[in-house]
Amino acid sequence: MALVQFYFDFISPFGYFAALRIDDLARRHGRETEWHSMLLGVSVLKVMGLKPVTETPLKGPYQNRDAARYARRHGVTLGRSLTAPAMNPLPAGRAFHWLKRHHPEHYKAVARDLLDAYWRDAIDISNTGIIAEIAARSGLDRSAIQAGIESAEARDLLRAAVDDSLAKGVFGSPYFLIDGEPFWGAEKMEVVEEWLKSGGW
Amino acid sequence: MALVQFYFDFISPFGYFAALRIDDLARRHGRETEWHSMLLGVSVLKVMGLKPVTETPLKGPYQNRDAARYARRHGVTLGRSLTAPAMNPLPAGRAFHWLKRHHPEHYKAVARDLLDAYWRDAIDISNTGIIAEIAARSGLDRSAIQAGIESAEARDLLRAAVDDSLAKGVFGSPYFLIDGEPFWGAEKMEVVEEWLKSGGW
Repeated sequence: MALVQFYFDFISPFGYFAALRIDDLARRHGRETEWHSMLLGVSVLKVMGLKPVTETPLKGPYQNRDAARYARRHGVTLGRSLTAPAMNPLPAGRAFHWLKRHHPEHYKAVARDLLDAYWRDAIDISNTGIIAEIAARSGLDRSAIQAGIESAEARDLLRAAVDDSLAKGVFGSPYFLIDGEPFWGAEKMEVVEEWLKSGGW
Repeated sequence: MALVQFYFDFISPFGYFAALRIDDLARRHGRETEWHSMLLGVSVLKVMGLKPVTETPLKGPYQNRDAARYARRHGVTLGRSLTAPAMNPLPAGRAFHWLKRHHPEHYKAVARDLLDAYWRDAIDISNTGIIAEIAARSGLDRSAIQAGIESAEARDLLRAAVDDSLAKGVFGSPYFLIDGEPFWGAEKMEVVEEWLKSGGW
């Protein structure tokens, strides 16, 4: 069965919500997932020509309220304030893609730990030392990881991944591609589940 | 029980999808609805400072695909092309608010007929004569309706309703306000249903 392709940005609360559920959801329907980190700053600002949603009147406040409500409904702990300025997402994105290339058996677990650290525990994960420390929990060598995250290769891997996500039409977080079909938004997961169950419509 | 407040723009396919379901959904939970037409052109362009989603790269094509998929999933016939330029929504909006004021027992049925005419039957409902003809199916006097739609009062009623929707934070179509809680988007209707069933979270 084809993989469920899951795209997210570390700075997106809805991406975090999806990360907490997508693997179980896919597995219930006999599917595995591939994760991709992307950058909303590139898709939203540069490609779509929009301002960040958090700076958009009416929609920004709504989105924060919606995220807080989703967290209450699904029992997700948000230690980080939804109105706090977003961190620089580049180090986490570079770490993600470097780990995916070099430690594919660990990249999802580390991504989950990074997301938990940022959203649940309100830890600043824009620091490569902290990222390496979190990755080390998966049994990886901390200094090798830190060097990897800071390498030119990691920068190139993230850039190529973002280009690829845009080429596939991905513009939001979370975003799912399943058998070529695109689904955008955390609450599309119910629709994704129906799609996987029914074989599409 | 407080009313379920339902906001939509006649030119929004997702507003149409919601109009087809919201009354039944509310009734299942012992609620009645109040309908409000609003103008995406004002909320999106003027207040939020965004371009129309149909002109937004990546998101525009996605939204059309998503709407077509929703229609297939829910068995909604769309006679009108999703990529056709939108009509001028002002005459339908004026008719809606004039009827709501003067014929409150008929305004929802006429709104449903107008939405069916536009989306299912691909009829141009930016023409006040055609709107009056459609309204006449509900037993209303055609020429009185047409005069009403074209009156300064109808223009004022629409303007006041749009101002009021913005004051309440409404920025999209469909948009629901339930016990003060906002829900945006056709696929939020499952969340709305859970909210009504559980009493909120």
